[in-house]
Amino acid sequence: MQALVVAPHPDDDVIGCGGSILHHIRSGHRVTAVYMTSGEAGSLDQPKEELRRIREAEAGEAASLMGFDDLIFLRNADGYLSINPENVTSLTRLIRAKRPEIIYFPHAGEGCRDHRITHEICAEALKRARGPWFQECPGEPWSVENVLCYEVWTPIAEISYAEDISDCIELKLKALRCHRSQLASIPYDEAVRGLNRYRGVMTGRGNHCECFQVLNIGKVY
Amino acid sequence: MQALVVAPHPDDDVIGCGGSILHHIRSGHRVTAVYMTSGEAGSLDQPKEELRRIREAEAGEAASLMGFDDLIFLRNADGYLSINPENVTSLTRLIRAKRPEIIYFPHAGEGCRDHRITHEICAEALKRARGPWFQECPGEPWSVENVLCYEVWTPIAEISYAEDISDCIELKLKALRCHRSQLASIPYDEAVRGLNRYRGVMTGRGNHCECFQVLNIGKVY
Amino acid sequence: MQALVVAPHPDDDVIGCGGSILHHIRSGHRVTAVYMTSGEAGSLDQPKEELRRIREAEAGEAASLMGFDDLIFLRNADGYLSINPENVTSLTRLIRAKRPEIIYFPHAGEGCRDHRITHEICAEALKRARGPWFQECPGEPWSVENVLCYEVWTPIAEISYAEDISDCIELKLKALRCHRSQLASIPYDEAVRGLNRYRGVMTGRGNHCECFQVLNIGKVY
Amino acid sequence: MQALVVAPHPDDDVIGCGGSILHHIRSGHRVTAVYMTSGEAGSLDQPKEELRRIREAEAGEAASLMGFDDLIFLRNADGYLSINPENVTSLTRLIRAKRPEIIYFPHAGEGCRDHRITHEICAEALKRARGPWFQECPGEPWSVENVLCYEVWTPIAEISYAEDISDCIELKLKALRCHRSQLASIPYDEAVRGLNRYRGVMTGRGNHCECFQVLNIGKVY
Amino acid sequence: MQALVVAPHPDDDVIGCGGSILHHIRSGHRVTAVYMTSGEAGSLDQPKEELRRIREAEAGEAASLMGFDDLIFLRNADGYLSINPENVTSLTRLIRAKRPEIIYFPHAGEGCRDHRITHEICAEALKRARGPWFQECPGEPWSVENVLCYEVWTPIAEISYAEDISDCIELKLKALRCHRSQLASIPYDEAVRGLNRYRGVMTGRGNHCECFQVLNIGKVY
Amino acid sequence: MQALVVAPHPDDDVIGCGGSILHHIRSGHRVTAVYMTSGEAGSLDQPKEELRRIREAEAGEAASLMGFDDLIFLRNADGYLSINPENVTSLTRLIRAKRPEIIYFPHAGEGCRDHRITHEICAEALKRARGPWFQECPGEPWSVENVLCYEVWTPIAEISYAEDISDCIELKLKALRCHRSQLASIPYDEAVRGLNRYRGVMTGRGNHCECFQVLNIGKVY
Repeated sequence: MQALVVAPHPDDDVIGCGGSILHHIRSGHRVTAVYMTSGEAGSLDQPKEELRRIREAEAGEAASLMGFDDLIFLRNADGYLSINPENVTSLTRLIRAKRPEIIYFPHAGEGCRDHRITHEICAEALKRARGPWFQECPGEPWSVENVLCYEVWTPIAEISYAEDISDCIELKLKALRCHRSQLASIPYDEAVRGLNRYRGVMTGRGNHCECFQVLNIGKVY
Repeated sequence: MQALVVAPHPDDDVIGCGGSILHHIRSGHRVTAVYMTSGEAGSLDQPKEELRRIREAEAGEAASLMGFDDLIFLRNADGYLSINPENVTSLTRLIRAKRPEIIYFPHAGEGCRDHRITHEICAEALKRARGPWFQECPGEPWSVENVLCYEVWTPIAEISYAEDISDCIELKLKALRCHRSQLASIPYDEAVRGLNRYRGVMTGRGNHCECFQVLNIGKVY
Repeated sequence: MQALVVAPHPDDDVIGCGGSILHHIRSGHRVTAVYMTSGEAGSLDQPKEELRRIREAEAGEAASLMGFDDLIFLRNADGYLSINPENVTSLTRLIRAKRPEIIYFPHAGEGCRDHRITHEICAEALKRARGPWFQECPGEPWSVENVLCYEVWTPIAEISYAEDISDCIELKLKALRCHRSQLASIPYDEAVRGLNRYRGVMTGRGNHCECFQVLNIGKVY
Repeated sequence: MQALVVAPHPDDDVIGCGGSILHHIRSGHRVTAVYMTSGEAGSLDQPKEELRRIREAEAGEAASLMGFDDLIFLRNADGYLSINPENVTSLTRLIRAKRPEIIYFPHAGEGCRDHRITHEICAEALKRARGPWFQECPGEPWSVENVLCYEVWTPIAEISYAEDISDCIELKLKALRCHRSQLASIPYDEAVRGLNRYRGVMTGRGNHCECFQVLNIGKVY
Repeated sequence: MQALVVAPHPDDDVIGCGGSILHHIRSGHRVTAVYMTSGEAGSLDQPKEELRRIREAEAGEAASLMGFDDLIFLRNADGYLSINPENVTSLTRLIRAKRPEIIYFPHAGEGCRDHRITHEICAEALKRARGPWFQECPGEPWSVENVLCYEVWTPIAEISYAEDISDCIELKLKALRCHRSQLASIPYDEAVRGLNRYRGVMTGRGNHCECFQVLNIGKVY
Repeated sequence: MQALVVAPHPDDDVIGCGGSILHHIRSGHRVTAVYMTSGEAGSLDQPKEELRRIREAEAGEAASLMGFDDLIFLRNADGYLSINPENVTSLTRLIRAKRPEIIYFPHAGEGCRDHRITHEICAEALKRARGPWFQECPGEPWSVENVLCYEVWTPIAEISYAEDISDCIELKLKALRCHRSQLASIPYDEAVRGLNRYRGVMTGRGNHCECFQVLNIGKVY
């Protein structure tokens, strides 16, 4: 199985679905992470070019710790992501090339604009990839069966799937802490542990859970 | 596997998910249908008591044709369904007693009030059934893994699952036609064939499809 | 009376409101169709320039069959429509020039992005055309009295008008079949017949109906 | 033509669509007003029975001034309106008995609960009246062609019809002032004049306008 | 200052706004807690009457620990709360009697029905309390200036106020743990600590925060 | 205290919150107005460059009458505002430079596109200004405590704050009338007086009120 994870910035993949990624790896699935931007706006003083380099390295380190190494950096300008032809085409191409059975990206209700734009780009690319259209995206039409949206800045209002990540919460947080440039100023690891604990208790599905909104599912039973 | 289908009136089960029911039967699953009302308001002249009797018989005939015989008639007043303690409790009890892995009921955006109320009752009963609460509903807590909402009067705006029923569309329509008292005045069979064909073509998932909104899913892959 | 039909791609006009167009023609009204794109992305192998030519010809053939010949091709890139100044201005100009009493365009809830963008462009152009603003759009201010949104990929959740097209469904489908390049891979004619039949039965307004969301109406009685 | 106006309390009819009522009268149409409650909660000291009597008389006086005398008082408890079988049935019966071509009631987004409940009751009754159902509501099925929702406490977000009432705004306000028991403490006449003036200027449809959300329309052109 | 906290069940007050309550107490404000139900459905075996007694005692203990003792138990049936005249009237009376400057209750998007109904009852009571209406609710009209909605089962999508409770998070959790009958089976304290930590980090307003949706505010600056 | 008012066009500031501006001035607060466009599309014949000059002068005159002179003209093309990097960055810079305690801009539901885009730009800039991000916007991170959205073309559905402007409604209207180029064709002053009167009566907060949606509040009591 091939899983595709699309993140607005490095670290959103780990925050939103790091535990689920670890489960894919453990099951022997291939995981590919696509970063729409390299998060170079995430500092008040570090030169952007330098921060981009650092954050891409941190993403690589986190991925390596989690057990995959297929990372794609689209290098849009952080904070200024837009649903332009290039981005829609890139994602559509990727979907037709990687032919993933499952895809993860931010949910539509995220307060952060880069997250919402990532959602729209992915939703649009999924529709395009599946039909006899858009020859600028080579490869056979491909329909991604399982489409899951994760939460980062804004919790999902109506969750439709909970993944119990109790068995790997510590490794998830360790991977998150690879993003040293970001955790230096904001303790995202504690925020994520908090949210995953809250979700686990309130859904009753495990000690720590990652929750998702299911946009599409390929097989129900 | 146990499937539970909740219908506001007899025939809504066949219209909304008759093909999916047939697939469950074919797979050897148990199917139980619960009718919130017996549809006795569906005529301008037939005495209600008589029409109730007729429609329950028609439901039995349709079920029998489809291959199941576990029908439960809650006999609320047709057209006047309400989310009262009796109904919420009945459904919660049923869920704890039948322990279904999958449940089908109308989606939240249906234009017909009885359908929306059925949705609310089911959504509420699902939450209650799963925790250490409500002792008036005997049995162990039970969490229904797969929750699918079907469409009858109002098409679903954002579908999240399509079941290809091309292999059994004719049998589904034959079952629907058992509801003679209703099809005498309104050709629901042609409406359903039309919608299922439209869904099949536009999703690209088969000749005829039943479409659903997934409220919850137990396992993604 | 002048009717203006705005379509994201050739064939959307026939799918969404082909029967209503036929009624306008029959009533002696003028009909103008505007195509935001020429649908040149609708193939995996045909060169885009060639497909554009073919699809514009198919649109002309369908229009001719329906009885009008005023077609305007705005030739935006198919799949990459955007609500930019050019498009908003073009539509506003057109409205002031044609002074239509009725306009048709896709509803706001369509799943396909080109359709949603077409909706936004039209909604915005309607507001601009009516006031003493935007001199780059020559002509007198013009307020379109009747604004109807049609359905193609996503059914309208709350319909506010149903047009009985039973008397011309076959001609509508014949016109749709002029779009040979598209129907070769996807049987849109059967999808449309299905949806129009479903709408007819469920609204009780005729055998086959086209349904609309009314954004504005000029006279109620 | 028969117009039916449904009001949660006496005075809501005049506030929401008094000018439109005057236009119906002027056109020789029949107008019937239905009051869900008699507004007897509208005071801190007057005995409810007495206030009910006063307000029904005020409604009669306003109607008489406007030129109609068909008033129906359903006398639900003011402030405690509920969508129960009695109310749904009463409205459905009325629709089948009066066979109106047009109906007016509050829009769904009103902040006041009695208004929202009135909306739901009317919307439900309209669906029931039109089909071969609900024999407890005698008469032939009847489909109301034109369904308009008016605004009182909460302005409509997306208006779809504006009626220019410049020619009768003063008479509308005079009719509103017949509701002396209410205007003694709150100057609704000035509020209404303000809203109607705002609507007139911002829509550009006249000096004073009443604005509506069109739920259904029978004929577009 | 008088603060009024309305909770569907004992413990919702502490979960949703326990830290804010502690701040009111510390500021010398009066705090009144109203429990719509006494949570007697919260067990699979304990007799309801007994559990009601226990949970009311737990609520008293938690309040006492937090520093207030004005508790009102409305004793609706747990799980079956409805927006009936009694409840709307009770709350309206309370508001006119207590004349609070600030009120807390669950937000409208809560997944649990008792929470949503509590929201509706409170929203309605607030509107009634403020005008010259409803003499069955004695006292002068009273307008509650500050209306805040808290989160329990479903996080708020768009928060509009964050209260930094870092200085009292441990005392809040200690108060929550007074609800022994509930925490025996579900570790709500860990869920709440998690959510409050997540909120604190993501809003940047403090280590632990309680977040609210502001429905009304009396003074902005 | 520093107040920041963001307006799509000159005159929207006065229409939406002119009374509130006057209260800030009276309290000795600093007021800065930012105009996203200079409204040069607001005529059918006047050359745009000339109208821009005129409208900026009218804005200056109105501000001067109200008692402030800090006006910033961003000079985007009127009618074609877009949420591009320049605009988001400009606003973020302004927020970090001016460090306002309160900000006013149009609410998200406005029918006019320039107003909605202004809303999005401001909402996004507020999020960016507050964290250790976006060094292209110099200055310390700044979190605007009080965020209020005003109404112009589309009334707010759920208002959360009403400012009583009865004491300065005439001065507000006088300031509005400085926008002679606009009021020559449309009597906005009468529209605004109407809406503010309606709001005052219906909220019961004063003779004339400006109503707002509160997106964020810094201190509740």
